[in-house]
Amino acid sequence: MRIITISREFGSGGRELGKRLADQLGYAYYDREIIAAIAERSHLDSGYVENALERPVWQAPLPTFRHSFTTASLFQTEQLNLLLEQRKVLEDIAKKGQDCVIVGRNADIVLAEYGPLSLFVCADLEAKLRRCRERASQEENLTDRQILQKIKSIDKNRAKVREMITGSPWGDRTAYQLIINTTGWDIRQLTPAIADFARRWFDRGQ
Amino acid sequence: MRIITISREFGSGGRELGKRLADQLGYAYYDREIIAAIAERSHLDSGYVENALERPVWQAPLPTFRHSFTTASLFQTEQLNLLLEQRKVLEDIAKKGQDCVIVGRNADIVLAEYGPLSLFVCADLEAKLRRCRERASQEENLTDRQILQKIKSIDKNRAKVREMITGSPWGDRTAYQLIINTTGWDIRQLTPAIADFARRWFDRGQ
Repeated sequence: MRIITISREFGSGGRELGKRLADQLGYAYYDREIIAAIAERSHLDSGYVENALERPVWQAPLPTFRHSFTTASLFQTEQLNLLLEQRKVLEDIAKKGQDCVIVGRNADIVLAEYGPLSLFVCADLEAKLRRCRERASQEENLTDRQILQKIKSIDKNRAKVREMITGSPWGDRTAYQLIINTTGWDIRQLTPAIADFARRWFDRGQ
Repeated sequence: MRIITISREFGSGGRELGKRLADQLGYAYYDREIIAAIAERSHLDSGYVENALERPVWQAPLPTFRHSFTTASLFQTEQLNLLLEQRKVLEDIAKKGQDCVIVGRNADIVLAEYGPLSLFVCADLEAKLRRCRERASQEENLTDRQILQKIKSIDKNRAKVREMITGSPWGDRTAYQLIINTTGWDIRQLTPAIADFARRWFDRGQ
């Protein structure tokens, strides 16, 4: 079984690359399906699950009096439970034994024993801003300043969650086989090069 | 003209990858030739030039009395002159107009206007140690501990020189199109994947 994991900066096109890689290689593709599965197992709303998993545990609101202290602790316990559920969902995916691409969720760490090909996708701030602008839906009418704030805030949280789980910084180069900067690329043109790299990685030494 | 620049951690196989890429793509290859050219232009010994260029300017010996202060200043002036000569040598290479691979020397920064494909090559410490052990010549009989010290010291200096020139950290992911972790690869098997990536990069949008 061949697993490709993709960590990515928000707006870098990592999700599009993952989807196209899966199509090109004929692999299964997992992304939002994971959140949906965790939500189902936990009997929670998937929006709530996504939000809880993207926030580092220690960023729960600071307790100011007894009642909110209890609330904060409950929230943290639930986050840890969700992380455990996430681990189970990822392990279930791996146990299916199909070749697959998994985007996000620190799957490279959780599924390390399966020897995934671990990719990290990044881009210049300018390129990420452009991509976010292009894909923004009509109802979501953010200014450039608001988009930049969103990029920074999401990535900051991803970095903290990663650090909490692995103890090493997000985007640390030795944690990945390849760090791909999508600046200047059309993802459609980039995909075959990464697919080729992946095939050679899995076939190496044979 | 197509220029591929390679920055690399000591022992990561970056030089071997550069040489093989040049062979495979039919590009010219520049590495130690650059040091030799600087030495010739400066009427200095190439060992001396290499050593001076690998040491960050501010690491010159600290002055303890008037005479050594003068010596330190002279050394720093000479280092800056060598950096200028290095720039000229790199520009001469680019002006030849041939496709080429250039290893080290922060060529991606100096030749930025030529739009080089900028690669960074890294590896796990364990993998770098193994590579250094394998390529060590008979007369150079270093213990593992000594090799590790050498790896750390050379990379620390490379990082400082890079930071001095660019103002941003060495191995900063947004400064490169691709960061390649050679751990687990035979460089011969890796080369075609990177050559393919390079062809697609230079042909993109055409």
